[in-house]
Amino acid sequence: MNKLKTAILGATGYTGLELIKILLNHPQVDLFFLGANSNHGSTLKSLVSNRSIKKNIRVRRNLEILNIKNVDLIFSCLPHGELPKHLRKFKKLNSKIIDLGGDYRLNKKMNALWYKNKRSEESYKEFQYLIPEINGDKINSKKNISNPGCYATSIILGLAPINTMINNSQSIIVDTKSGTTGAGRSSKVEHSFSETDENLSTYKVGVHQHAPEIEQFIKKIFKKRVKILMVPHLLPIKRGIMSNIYIKNSSILHEEKIYREFKKFYSNSKFVRLLKGSMPSLQNVQNTNICEIGIKILPDKKTLLITSVIDNLIKGAAGQAVQNMNIAYGFDSNLGL
Amino acid sequence: MNKLKTAILGATGYTGLELIKILLNHPQVDLFFLGANSNHGSTLKSLVSNRSIKKNIRVRRNLEILNIKNVDLIFSCLPHGELPKHLRKFKKLNSKIIDLGGDYRLNKKMNALWYKNKRSEESYKEFQYLIPEINGDKINSKKNISNPGCYATSIILGLAPINTMINNSQSIIVDTKSGTTGAGRSSKVEHSFSETDENLSTYKVGVHQHAPEIEQFIKKIFKKRVKILMVPHLLPIKRGIMSNIYIKNSSILHEEKIYREFKKFYSNSKFVRLLKGSMPSLQNVQNTNICEIGIKILPDKKTLLITSVIDNLIKGAAGQAVQNMNIAYGFDSNLGL
Amino acid sequence: MNKLKTAILGATGYTGLELIKILLNHPQVDLFFLGANSNHGSTLKSLVSNRSIKKNIRVRRNLEILNIKNVDLIFSCLPHGELPKHLRKFKKLNSKIIDLGGDYRLNKKMNALWYKNKRSEESYKEFQYLIPEINGDKINSKKNISNPGCYATSIILGLAPINTMINNSQSIIVDTKSGTTGAGRSSKVEHSFSETDENLSTYKVGVHQHAPEIEQFIKKIFKKRVKILMVPHLLPIKRGIMSNIYIKNSSILHEEKIYREFKKFYSNSKFVRLLKGSMPSLQNVQNTNICEIGIKILPDKKTLLITSVIDNLIKGAAGQAVQNMNIAYGFDSNLGL
Amino acid sequence: MNKLKTAILGATGYTGLELIKILLNHPQVDLFFLGANSNHGSTLKSLVSNRSIKKNIRVRRNLEILNIKNVDLIFSCLPHGELPKHLRKFKKLNSKIIDLGGDYRLNKKMNALWYKNKRSEESYKEFQYLIPEINGDKINSKKNISNPGCYATSIILGLAPINTMINNSQSIIVDTKSGTTGAGRSSKVEHSFSETDENLSTYKVGVHQHAPEIEQFIKKIFKKRVKILMVPHLLPIKRGIMSNIYIKNSSILHEEKIYREFKKFYSNSKFVRLLKGSMPSLQNVQNTNICEIGIKILPDKKTLLITSVIDNLIKGAAGQAVQNMNIAYGFDSNLGL
Repeated sequence: MNKLKTAILGATGYTGLELIKILLNHPQVDLFFLGANSNHGSTLKSLVSNRSIKKNIRVRRNLEILNIKNVDLIFSCLPHGELPKHLRKFKKLNSKIIDLGGDYRLNKKMNALWYKNKRSEESYKEFQYLIPEINGDKINSKKNISNPGCYATSIILGLAPINTMINNSQSIIVDTKSGTTGAGRSSKVEHSFSETDENLSTYKVGVHQHAPEIEQFIKKIFKKRVKILMVPHLLPIKRGIMSNIYIKNSSILHEEKIYREFKKFYSNSKFVRLLKGSMPSLQNVQNTNICEIGIKILPDKKTLLITSVIDNLIKGAAGQAVQNMNIAYGFDSNLGL
Repeated sequence: MNKLKTAILGATGYTGLELIKILLNHPQVDLFFLGANSNHGSTLKSLVSNRSIKKNIRVRRNLEILNIKNVDLIFSCLPHGELPKHLRKFKKLNSKIIDLGGDYRLNKKMNALWYKNKRSEESYKEFQYLIPEINGDKINSKKNISNPGCYATSIILGLAPINTMINNSQSIIVDTKSGTTGAGRSSKVEHSFSETDENLSTYKVGVHQHAPEIEQFIKKIFKKRVKILMVPHLLPIKRGIMSNIYIKNSSILHEEKIYREFKKFYSNSKFVRLLKGSMPSLQNVQNTNICEIGIKILPDKKTLLITSVIDNLIKGAAGQAVQNMNIAYGFDSNLGL
Repeated sequence: MNKLKTAILGATGYTGLELIKILLNHPQVDLFFLGANSNHGSTLKSLVSNRSIKKNIRVRRNLEILNIKNVDLIFSCLPHGELPKHLRKFKKLNSKIIDLGGDYRLNKKMNALWYKNKRSEESYKEFQYLIPEINGDKINSKKNISNPGCYATSIILGLAPINTMINNSQSIIVDTKSGTTGAGRSSKVEHSFSETDENLSTYKVGVHQHAPEIEQFIKKIFKKRVKILMVPHLLPIKRGIMSNIYIKNSSILHEEKIYREFKKFYSNSKFVRLLKGSMPSLQNVQNTNICEIGIKILPDKKTLLITSVIDNLIKGAAGQAVQNMNIAYGFDSNLGL
Repeated sequence: MNKLKTAILGATGYTGLELIKILLNHPQVDLFFLGANSNHGSTLKSLVSNRSIKKNIRVRRNLEILNIKNVDLIFSCLPHGELPKHLRKFKKLNSKIIDLGGDYRLNKKMNALWYKNKRSEESYKEFQYLIPEINGDKINSKKNISNPGCYATSIILGLAPINTMINNSQSIIVDTKSGTTGAGRSSKVEHSFSETDENLSTYKVGVHQHAPEIEQFIKKIFKKRVKILMVPHLLPIKRGIMSNIYIKNSSILHEEKIYREFKKFYSNSKFVRLLKGSMPSLQNVQNTNICEIGIKILPDKKTLLITSVIDNLIKGAAGQAVQNMNIAYGFDSNLGL
């Protein structure tokens, strides 16, 4: 098989750069196009501090992709709202699109509610929201892929194995913390070093857009209506997400039994690591595509804590996108990762 | 009134140094003795970068205090177990003791359970556990004072105003995070910069010794038996604690009403700041004796989040100890703070 | 004597906030006006987490100061170029001005060269550049005060005692590092946490505007023409400056002798601390008005390293401004500090 | 050719872990033995968060290597003094040794002076100190390799191209800064997060053991006797070294000309990146084997600043060791890097 002729749009943000680094090592990918509206003109070599690049290319404007033929695959790291604006034009390229943004994660109704935008029903149907460990085996190869949000990934992977324990209309507390790269390259004063360093603060408490994303997925895949009570924090670190998920049960829980359920659920998952007798920390997963999960029954014996950690830029974005690509093209799920 | 002839034992740890800085500015205190088993011989001037010290003194060994007469007040920042070992000898000094350690926070039974030590019933009776905002008006002037733990302070101040909402045998989730000075001067590899920086990890999940401290206090003061499900984190920052307290209610909650309860409860408290319409962040309270509290009803409308932040070395230790001293001696509660 | 009726313009930046904290504790100051073009309307209480404020005031627009009579003293923390724009109007207030900005540090010629601005000769003559430890005894009480830059302070204090060792036309290497608050509240991407954390970078190498400021001062006070080769770094910390000053000598140097020269030079300086046998670190001076200096003869025996550390917001800005005020009004130099 | 049967001793320190990560991806290496006196029993999988390991092995005690036959190559990351203690025994294995420690960097005389140890002349002759970009073409394939120190690497790479500009007996100022992993896993209080964070301090000023290492190399390769005046700093970051090298010249310097000398010198070096018109920052090289160099003539026109940055664990240790291995075995110099 020929290598996939692959483009990245929005290539010079934090997610785009991680994607470049992964794809440069992927044996089935020919990374031939990098788009960015800022930084165009700079070279691949200057972007990644890596001398062993075989083919140095220049960053071009995003929409220059429209002039190119035979593009197999487009990873979109475009800012929110940009992909829908140009989707029709992109479709003429007949390339598969993997969107790392939030534009096609929510269904039409939720999108209207959370992002205040109006789009045709049609476009939503062209994207499949895909968490490889959970609905990767149900992939619809004709569709484009909507890559999950970073918080959503860490929380869904923590919740999925105990979905049978969850009641309908249960509300689930998720106390979750993210490093600063989750906000992208930011020029907000509140993201400056002077404001973030040595600090901890919450934001979008109860109103983060990844909550409906999780609720929608849980409903679709596990047929459960739950309420995700998300409390996100900005950590004074660069990368990593830790999500503490609290499940209240009506009867006494057994750690060993729950551990076995997780073990079974993820028996074929190369990128989920379950801990036994210890709890995760961010440094275990930074710079990897691993989701590490620890479980603990709290002292009332009826409250389960699931702690799930990922690298927001890799398992929460670029790495998972490549995992999804691998599935879509029938490669080994961990190829290049 | 003459100034209080005051000593600090264990004066060169992080808490001791904060205490020195506060007491040097306190108009009613004559800080005449600093004890430390390491660092003895060094001078007060070298400890605090402050030229305007009137009287420079040398650090001496802790037990040298026993040779001194007319000590009015001893602040003990000794390591766990040290104060009980020497308590009888200290008592001959007839000084009031304010213990910033954990030796007299739990009652005899809990102490035996959590700290595995056996002591006479008597000694516990000589110490009163005192949170100034809550039982400061019930102070027993004949007793020594046991100063609350840092986590416990942040959590109790968050819980107290809604104690009527709490049911007996309720279990309360507290997702709580602390800076590294909470562990004291540490030579553990896990507290090294290389291990802590850019990391986030939990520790003592469900088994932190401040949980029984909180439970015991809630039971004594509010007659409620609750289970505190504490999940502590080590933050890559030097100082500050943020505690997220989650209360599940059976019926719909009203933020405004709860806010008013908090407002009323803390109407006379100079060191508690309630936020309306925003949530706390650590930088608001670092280097102050303030506890900042924010409240938020989460999207299921039945779960209340109370976020409480303090500086662990000040409101969580040295500052609160001085507040307790002010109460014990009838000074203004914010004198010197 | 009545308290000085004092205003701060540009009061809500990092320097302004430090100044507020210091002046609130100053026994001779009545801080009655806070100006800021952003944040006006907010209260003093909300700016400083300090309950013991006697008089809560609101932040007003900077130019509202013009409507007020009997202002004794104005501290200006206005952005570069703002004070000269309004100086004529301010002069009608007949208040003394202490400028913490860079507008009146350089003489007319250098100002034109470095800041590309043209102003009347006259205005420069109204400001005296004042480093309290060095030319504080030559204060011209009729003039306004131009407060030195943060880097300049640390470097001049390190160089002054050995000015006799410096030859004319000598070029002096200064490898200097600053925390991020030196750049003020910044919305530049390069000052974001994601870009600054875990990083170290140089900037304005050889072209920092504090180099001519130092050269001009050395020339004026010590009659030496030197070239300051400044290499500034941005440190991933919030506050503090460390300046390493390297002096090459033609003959062998004696540490003890140089130490004694420093000791003598600063014998009356309450805010300079000389180290003997050890070298400074930033944590020794953070949150203080101290400049700590260490000296070391390097292994070739002819190169002297002078390491000078300060807190950029205090000794490098607000604290030194208050020191200058104390001198101007004949108060103790460390009053309120 | 068969893969090299390769062992790492001292495999669980920071350098050892980086080495593991690199060697796992090296096509010519069969990493079959990991030694460590602490952590033995743990698995390779648990050490590196990487699921795609083909062969999981257990960490064993370092000296168990002596029971194994046919070991081609040993990387030693043992603590100082350990390798010499056992060298005779290791020699019976007939393996090539690449020492990442400091035991064989200095010659006998300097070793005695700097490390106070006495060893036979012989052992020194068995090791060749090798900086791939500089004396890699003079490799003696019969010898073991002594891998340069991290500071030394950054400084030598900065100095080498202008060695003709350096005079005999010149003393060269090097203001250099390192992240904390340079100190290894540390249990010293001064390396704790609470002491290092938000701080900057110098250490071993003028007496760092990498200074004679550099002097010895410069003398041997370039026949110049120079004095390296090293001023090392501990940075509050995890990894990276920035060395500022200052060269005083008697006549006026031309940046373009010096740039061309550097360009020519490193024309075949894949891992040295010269900057033109900008200066390096640590984030450009972290997690890579690149040394980035910037040059700048300072305002006196006679002082040259060379800024050299590397990742201390990779180009300063594990990466360079693999580069040296590649040269020793005739592989492409960037294989696996």
